[in-house]
Amino acid sequence: MRAVVMRNNTLVVESIPDPIPGPGEVLVKTLACGICGTDLHALQFAGILGAGSRSSGGVFAIDPNRDIVMGHEFCAEILDYGPGTRKRFKPGTRVCSMPKLKRATGDEAIGYSSENPGGFGEMMRLSESLLLEVPNGLSPEMAALTEPMAVGYHAVAKARLGWRDVPLVIGCGPVGLSVIAALKIKGAGPIVAVDLSVRRRELAIKMGADMVIDPTDKSPYEAFGPGGPARRFLARILNPARHAVIFECVGRPGLIDDIMSNAPRHARIIVLGLCMERDNIYPVSAIYKELDLHFVLGYTGDEFASTLRNISRGKLPVQPLITGKVGVGGVAEAFVELRSPQHHAKILVEPWRS
Amino acid sequence: MRAVVMRNNTLVVESIPDPIPGPGEVLVKTLACGICGTDLHALQFAGILGAGSRSSGGVFAIDPNRDIVMGHEFCAEILDYGPGTRKRFKPGTRVCSMPKLKRATGDEAIGYSSENPGGFGEMMRLSESLLLEVPNGLSPEMAALTEPMAVGYHAVAKARLGWRDVPLVIGCGPVGLSVIAALKIKGAGPIVAVDLSVRRRELAIKMGADMVIDPTDKSPYEAFGPGGPARRFLARILNPARHAVIFECVGRPGLIDDIMSNAPRHARIIVLGLCMERDNIYPVSAIYKELDLHFVLGYTGDEFASTLRNISRGKLPVQPLITGKVGVGGVAEAFVELRSPQHHAKILVEPWRS
Repeated sequence: MRAVVMRNNTLVVESIPDPIPGPGEVLVKTLACGICGTDLHALQFAGILGAGSRSSGGVFAIDPNRDIVMGHEFCAEILDYGPGTRKRFKPGTRVCSMPKLKRATGDEAIGYSSENPGGFGEMMRLSESLLLEVPNGLSPEMAALTEPMAVGYHAVAKARLGWRDVPLVIGCGPVGLSVIAALKIKGAGPIVAVDLSVRRRELAIKMGADMVIDPTDKSPYEAFGPGGPARRFLARILNPARHAVIFECVGRPGLIDDIMSNAPRHARIIVLGLCMERDNIYPVSAIYKELDLHFVLGYTGDEFASTLRNISRGKLPVQPLITGKVGVGGVAEAFVELRSPQHHAKILVEPWRS
Repeated sequence: MRAVVMRNNTLVVESIPDPIPGPGEVLVKTLACGICGTDLHALQFAGILGAGSRSSGGVFAIDPNRDIVMGHEFCAEILDYGPGTRKRFKPGTRVCSMPKLKRATGDEAIGYSSENPGGFGEMMRLSESLLLEVPNGLSPEMAALTEPMAVGYHAVAKARLGWRDVPLVIGCGPVGLSVIAALKIKGAGPIVAVDLSVRRRELAIKMGADMVIDPTDKSPYEAFGPGGPARRFLARILNPARHAVIFECVGRPGLIDDIMSNAPRHARIIVLGLCMERDNIYPVSAIYKELDLHFVLGYTGDEFASTLRNISRGKLPVQPLITGKVGVGGVAEAFVELRSPQHHAKILVEPWRS
């Protein structure tokens, strides 16, 4: 099959052997697969990403010296069944799955493993037990957004928002946008969102943000203070009985400390941004204000399934997030464009395209 | 009165004007006042401590250019009443108080303010509304341990331990020991405690630790792993359904990252150690393991009162913590000794001593 292969920190289109489904596995055709910020990180920091996962018991099996077909945000179509399968769905059925394989020897990553090619190739193998049928009529590209939208859903669930909590979302890339959408579903608000890009601030509004802030224009934290420019709008925030819950959705070194030093007392900081580098913090400000930091990653199976259902029912307005589509030949260029994402949120790869 | 004055990063004994109680305030004689690790920090980092408190809305009013009489862990005896007081207690009554003054203009620190001398002087003024009578028969030195023991009580309360949580206490100075004692009261355990000093590990056992580890001998984190040397003892920890709750009670740069990189998945880290310096972390390990960091400080009024009650009822075995007593003339030397505390836990200042 044709696939985009990561090799020595570059992306090349290659013809590689078709994956063979093992026991309990299905062979699928990739219909659409999103490019994730973590894929960009992996291209740059493959070693760190692999070592970090290994040392913390994660499933990523990234060896920088071996080819990897990335892609873990996919919708696919069933082609064939491996041995020992129950064949619950007919070939041709559209499915989503969490990007991992359930195996007797333990879970394995799809897309971050040299053994299990991801959605930047024409075909994948998936575990039958993890398949979710795409509800009738939902397009593959919208279904492919299940994975990134589940990330925000999980983070908001972990934040355990109470009625006193007021969310502030720092960064409106796909991760921040998925947090905003999940907050909207929860009825949390007012939702304040921050991004440098005017395009992304527009998307934040579409996803449910009540107010967007350009941090070059004014500090988002001022909004929490008594002299804040957003005072009237944020009257609920300014009530001292309410607590800020700040979602860090960028992953740039220095940002956690910036949030800690500017956050109001008793704020909770939910860290989704995947900072791969060494970072500096001044713990003293966090201690004085009794801040909580919750580092979050991924989602549960239930959260993943709920997200697909929410998309199919129109509760998650994901269509505006899709800002580009490419075939395998366009992936390398798409990675470059996503490094300075003034225009893009999510670019989908359609490996079947010529 | 005689008092130990902090001036230009040194401690000197001086004769200074007696404090005058304002409206709603009482004049007290200091009976005993503990030296806290934060006092040691203040002598070294007065500027940072003051600026950090100011920028985060704290009550410390530390101006490195002005004299300060420190001391915030005290038991005192009522001498006289200021105007507008209810005179609930007779002169001679022994009292404790949180180290702050309730004033119409807002709370003010006692001991970390040039305006309000703390317990390293012969007399203080306290707010009548915050006074707690020392229960009959409890010695002033044991009552003076209310404040440091309330710190651990608060941290354990904030940790919201469930039956699945297993505590690990890193550092057995007064802060770590107060955490151990509070964990014991809660019935949490097994309590594993870590310290370099054999003397402190002995104290940890006296305060309720079930097991102590010398980190030069073996990694405390190994105990959480399947090959851990403490396997049988820690069978409950090794159950994957149980979560580690790690109390950082040291405050040394690098320790938060060390804990983050060694902690098991889904661990919660309660940070009480007051690291005044810039610190490095690698967020990626915290993200992979979905760690929570809770920075905590101080206590509530209820927690403070409960702690005094617990001491008076013998539920908190604080007597072994008192490893030294000095008059004002011995404070500077005590600060030096506490910097390499192989022998000491808590040194009490008795300013009335000649």
